[in-house]
Amino acid sequence: MGNYVNLKEKAYDIIKNKIINLDFQPGEYLEEKKLGELLEISRTPIREALSRLENEMWVKNMPRKGIFVTEVDEHLLNDIFEVRIHFEPAVLEIAFSNLSSVKLQLFKSRFEAYENCDQSERDKLDNDFHLYIFNSVDNIFVKNMLNTTFEHLVRVRRLSFDKKSKERIAESNKEHIEIINLILSGKKEESVKAFRNHLEKSYKYYLEILF
Amino acid sequence: MGNYVNLKEKAYDIIKNKIINLDFQPGEYLEEKKLGELLEISRTPIREALSRLENEMWVKNMPRKGIFVTEVDEHLLNDIFEVRIHFEPAVLEIAFSNLSSVKLQLFKSRFEAYENCDQSERDKLDNDFHLYIFNSVDNIFVKNMLNTTFEHLVRVRRLSFDKKSKERIAESNKEHIEIINLILSGKKEESVKAFRNHLEKSYKYYLEILF
Repeated sequence: MGNYVNLKEKAYDIIKNKIINLDFQPGEYLEEKKLGELLEISRTPIREALSRLENEMWVKNMPRKGIFVTEVDEHLLNDIFEVRIHFEPAVLEIAFSNLSSVKLQLFKSRFEAYENCDQSERDKLDNDFHLYIFNSVDNIFVKNMLNTTFEHLVRVRRLSFDKKSKERIAESNKEHIEIINLILSGKKEESVKAFRNHLEKSYKYYLEILF
Repeated sequence: MGNYVNLKEKAYDIIKNKIINLDFQPGEYLEEKKLGELLEISRTPIREALSRLENEMWVKNMPRKGIFVTEVDEHLLNDIFEVRIHFEPAVLEIAFSNLSSVKLQLFKSRFEAYENCDQSERDKLDNDFHLYIFNSVDNIFVKNMLNTTFEHLVRVRRLSFDKKSKERIAESNKEHIEIINLILSGKKEESVKAFRNHLEKSYKYYLEILF
């Protein structure tokens, strides 16, 4: 019985990661029995993991049909970016004085050198930067709060992997560099505003390429 | 085994509510075995419930000492109000156009008539108003995100129940009425600003009376 928690956590982690990494595609039917066989985990911990995944919008239980991976539709994208546009700049505001100029300089160089990256490296850089801002806030509620939204964003990024234009990537890098420059020169308000602008542009762009 | 999830949820809900309602006091030692007897629930679901409560800052596991209810200290109060001051106004901004003027008028009358309430009714009114703003946002991430913070606030309110001055209560009611008036007259930016001011004042006041 002591191992039970671990099995549930394990099932939760594996299934979630498969959804984020698109091994389980949006809209895909997930059969409990097959999941159990695949993960070699019994049905009860699988069912509990699925119920948690449903709370976090990774799967949807359709009455009399079964459990499906959620689609990334306009509604979900709106929910993700509503949180990002309103809350990430607030997080930057809170974290502002905790940010390390050494680390920011490092991010800046990486964004400047992005043309040498392949796209998955570049996506990782983007994630790393936003996660760095989050994790600079020493507030347990904020951390708990933003994690799920961010993981959903990672799935959105993967879904748009082949659809992003070089122009938008270049522009997005410029926006990141601008934000970093503003932080480095101590301009809190301006950096928060630029961060918000960047997120609004990203939202518009994802709407364009995904739907 | 099917009942197992329910037992864990039940233990989680009961223990959390006892902490919020101060039946379990800040700093109190919680013995797993006694909790099990009190709730008539076996040890494993109790332990899982406690682990979730630890993630949400309701209890703290001290190595070699056991599990204790978290104290409401300056650090926790800071975490709660950091979230409130930065995120609740953002929520108002998102929810703005979903708010019903009928309901707002109703809240306004209740705040105006607060002198006829006893203090627990008045605290409930305050909670109801803030929850109404939250729940007007049709965004699953936002809802999941703010719940825990709000429940912590309810505990803070109970702890300061006997310490609040009539002056602060009167002032706080005025602030609520001002916010409602601004919303009713369609002044989004001003209402967001007034909401933020109100939260900053509350934070200062709780700091004063609690520590």
